[in-house]
Amino acid sequence: MSIKRHEPTKIYSTAVEANGFVFLAGITPKTLTKDVKAQSEEVLAEIDRLLKATGSDKSKIVTATIWLTDIRNREAMNEAWTAWNGGKDLPARACVEAKLADPRMLVEIQVTAAK
Amino acid sequence: MSIKRHEPTKIYSTAVEANGFVFLAGITPKTLTKDVKAQSEEVLAEIDRLLKATGSDKSKIVTATIWLTDIRNREAMNEAWTAWNGGKDLPARACVEAKLADPRMLVEIQVTAAK
Amino acid sequence: MSIKRHEPTKIYSTAVEANGFVFLAGITPKTLTKDVKAQSEEVLAEIDRLLKATGSDKSKIVTATIWLTDIRNREAMNEAWTAWNGGKDLPARACVEAKLADPRMLVEIQVTAAK
Repeated sequence: MSIKRHEPTKIYSTAVEANGFVFLAGITPKTLTKDVKAQSEEVLAEIDRLLKATGSDKSKIVTATIWLTDIRNREAMNEAWTAWNGGKDLPARACVEAKLADPRMLVEIQVTAAK
Repeated sequence: MSIKRHEPTKIYSTAVEANGFVFLAGITPKTLTKDVKAQSEEVLAEIDRLLKATGSDKSKIVTATIWLTDIRNREAMNEAWTAWNGGKDLPARACVEAKLADPRMLVEIQVTAAK
Repeated sequence: MSIKRHEPTKIYSTAVEANGFVFLAGITPKTLTKDVKAQSEEVLAEIDRLLKATGSDKSKIVTATIWLTDIRNREAMNEAWTAWNGGKDLPARACVEAKLADPRMLVEIQVTAAK
């Protein structure tokens, strides 16, 4: 068993590989002035980048957890979600409401992929 | 490594198999007029069905996340939970409060099982 | 495939081993009069104990979910977090706000480790 950790910050690793899985951190948007759809697009693009850096990719995501600061933003987030994955290779998913680290963050997405 | 996806909706797969695990989506009740105990029973019955469809079953659940729209409903949900698993083969579990996709949904349960 | 369950309560197992992973339950503090930093220290010490009991340890944590009843307590929790892991072998992580089982609980932490 070996564990490989990628792009550590001071408090977490952005991605961790172990036993055939890649665990990403909960990814939040950096451009906090954007609306929820644009924030979702930014988060999903960053997930793409991180998965590729570990040798996995979005077609291999097995499960996703999505937190929205307002669950009524689910449709707008889903527009970005579906544009991103094209309705293919869809992971299991849960999407619930929660306050996030910064009140301007409207969405946080965490995925686990196989590789 | 192979990934098998089951019962996809437009936005997620209801179950995903990879590397010896089955990841279910967060399952919500369909009968939204029921109380939290009855909604929990309905969700747990659906989890049963989904796990069996993948070749796993409730005795192999390794972890569960439960979201309640009102954490004070924990006891009522636990009555359904314990009647369902009989106190046997219990998974690791976390249960927290969160608003869900529809305000009439009182509970959402997501499990990961081995197979 | 074999599943090993540790320290079951009436409703969940405190740790479950399967396929090279250890899934811990969401761990909450027992001393509910403490502040969030001290509650976090207590939770992290219990996670240490549980991982060691399964033959894993905190250097092998792959992902962590942290729920705070007030997201503004993130900094205080992070002080305990960083003192505990020393900035080494950091897992992927998500930290969001949620109400917990008892209103005096300020933090709940759930980890998955490799072993």
